[in-house]
Amino acid sequence: MSEPLQLPQGFHAHVANIGIKDDTDDFTIVAADGPCVAAGVFTQSSFAGPSVFVSRRHVAAGTARAMVVISKNANVATGAQGLADAEEVVAGVAAALGCAPTEVLLASTGVIGRPYPMDVVRTGLATIPSPLPGTDAAAVACGIMTTDTVAKTASATVGAARIVGVAKGVGMIEPNMATMIAMFFTDADVERPTLDATFRRVIDRTLNCVSIDTDTSTSDTAVILANGVAGPVAADAFEAALYSVARSLTQQIARDGEGATTLLEVTVDCAVSAEQAKRVARAIVNSPLVKTAVHGADPNWGRVAMAVGKATTADEVDQNSVIIRFGTQEVYPARMDDRGLQALAAYMRGDDVLIHVSLATGGTATATVWGCDLTDGYIRINADYTT
Amino acid sequence: MSEPLQLPQGFHAHVANIGIKDDTDDFTIVAADGPCVAAGVFTQSSFAGPSVFVSRRHVAAGTARAMVVISKNANVATGAQGLADAEEVVAGVAAALGCAPTEVLLASTGVIGRPYPMDVVRTGLATIPSPLPGTDAAAVACGIMTTDTVAKTASATVGAARIVGVAKGVGMIEPNMATMIAMFFTDADVERPTLDATFRRVIDRTLNCVSIDTDTSTSDTAVILANGVAGPVAADAFEAALYSVARSLTQQIARDGEGATTLLEVTVDCAVSAEQAKRVARAIVNSPLVKTAVHGADPNWGRVAMAVGKATTADEVDQNSVIIRFGTQEVYPARMDDRGLQALAAYMRGDDVLIHVSLATGGTATATVWGCDLTDGYIRINADYTT
Repeated sequence: MSEPLQLPQGFHAHVANIGIKDDTDDFTIVAADGPCVAAGVFTQSSFAGPSVFVSRRHVAAGTARAMVVISKNANVATGAQGLADAEEVVAGVAAALGCAPTEVLLASTGVIGRPYPMDVVRTGLATIPSPLPGTDAAAVACGIMTTDTVAKTASATVGAARIVGVAKGVGMIEPNMATMIAMFFTDADVERPTLDATFRRVIDRTLNCVSIDTDTSTSDTAVILANGVAGPVAADAFEAALYSVARSLTQQIARDGEGATTLLEVTVDCAVSAEQAKRVARAIVNSPLVKTAVHGADPNWGRVAMAVGKATTADEVDQNSVIIRFGTQEVYPARMDDRGLQALAAYMRGDDVLIHVSLATGGTATATVWGCDLTDGYIRINADYTT
Repeated sequence: MSEPLQLPQGFHAHVANIGIKDDTDDFTIVAADGPCVAAGVFTQSSFAGPSVFVSRRHVAAGTARAMVVISKNANVATGAQGLADAEEVVAGVAAALGCAPTEVLLASTGVIGRPYPMDVVRTGLATIPSPLPGTDAAAVACGIMTTDTVAKTASATVGAARIVGVAKGVGMIEPNMATMIAMFFTDADVERPTLDATFRRVIDRTLNCVSIDTDTSTSDTAVILANGVAGPVAADAFEAALYSVARSLTQQIARDGEGATTLLEVTVDCAVSAEQAKRVARAIVNSPLVKTAVHGADPNWGRVAMAVGKATTADEVDQNSVIIRFGTQEVYPARMDDRGLQALAAYMRGDDVLIHVSLATGGTATATVWGCDLTDGYIRINADYTT
């Protein structure tokens, strides 16, 4: 049994059940002992929740001390009362930590349209221990789960510093700036403009490239806090380390997609632009017909051709030049015999299915996206979620 | 038992099984006794099949004699051989009917990526009866089915003329000019420019407003043939009659969506533009989380707020002004008590669920789209379609 994953030095956590919905942990705080440089990206939804409003405002200042997460209730579509409740949570946490409310970021996911049960929230705020006792990153990852079946953590070292990431999210996942909730903590010393630019580049290639069901959350939040305790590190090494952590979390989210049994990775290359590559890759990873074929290990590769077709016009892509592969096996334009179809079906029965499409446009742009199969389990989970 | 629905005067049909895949009908011809004015709209997919290429070319001339449909094999992603096979089918039908190949339109749906079994197709072409014996529109609708569970027909009268429509399609349905296959036959005398403009307007409000699974077919084809036998009719009455036929077929397609148990109708109004209204309505009708909630009669209306949110920015839509209704029941911003949630769940258990969203932008544009719930049945049908 390996050592539990620890938060970077200078970060502490409090994870508790305060009774938001059931008896699982639903109230999580991660705080730095001193001020941090912060960056964050948030949902573009017009129904963004009060947590997103508050965190977007606070992260704009560029520094932060703590991140608090309430799970099992999203506090979204709750009007002026919802915003007042979010402000009260932030103020309560700041008072317990001895910092300014503007140094506290907030995220919340769960059912939409129900106000926080403020009686239990206030009890939770009144019982925050001081100092925060925990350093276990996995406990933090558990505390923020809703319908996730596994806790999602990843870490990397860069010079003398570490980066630890935790994430949650298995449904309503097609981020449009960030995914449900992802938090990164590092003791590296990174200046704000560098941290912000690096974070946005990395998220754009990782958490912005996952889709479980095409539904964009009202609560998407990805945040990084850097406390600088370990001193400065090389910028390119930091970006590579952050990318490895974010990509790992992205793959964990895709693999734990609601009802999922298979991780789907789609790479599109030889595109004229990154936008075109990502558009086509997303069309494939989001196609319910591709996703169900993967689930059934049905060697119906024509559905990938369909998805390429719906995402592009004949002016953009010549169907006679496109190459489609599953793993390393070419399925189009190659004509497969029965043995080829059987080999394809066998490949599709694996835990990971890689689909590779060359658009053959003469361009060199590429994109990779992650998703999962579509199963009876997804239907069952979502047909009776609130009841 | 009512009289079977007859084709308009001057149209005859041949429906047969020629052994494309199994022993159900798979080869259908509808031909006019004389020349027809024709209009058609087709898939925008870059992987459009040879049938679409041939029909698009032939319909551009504005006149046609016949429509032939091969079902259970789409003849898509089959390269140069697929195009040659399509030309051979059209030539064979033209020879049997005694018209030019350019007067024959072709549509085909079924598995993608497999060539026609030309041996059985040639036998079918050699055994076309002369003259065509049938006039039963329901038999035509049955002949073009693949995984449809019911034949889809509709009709209307306009002056002395009739309009009869038949359609198929239950999966890979999010048309982007037309749906899988829809054919309209009329004995009205309508000039080509009027027929073409009327047809495009009607399709845009009907078959272009249905989505079962967001996947756009490579074979979408909607065609109308007008033989003029009944003489001229008023243009506005013709458009109204054509709209009623097309809307009926659209609703039949949505209700028969793969695995569907509920017809979903979404109307968005008070939008700044028809584009905005349709974009938001599509986001709702396509959301797997809305669709599964409808399936489970889970009164989780927050998912509609989520779908509005993902389709719009906060600059476009003020979340505090939006109104969401299920049927006539306001669910947002009204705060429902338990009795309200129970009433909503009861409504959602019906065969039809109407969702009505007012965007309250100050604009007056509106759009209605149709879809269906997402069920275990959809997964089962599509996880093992080809095998």
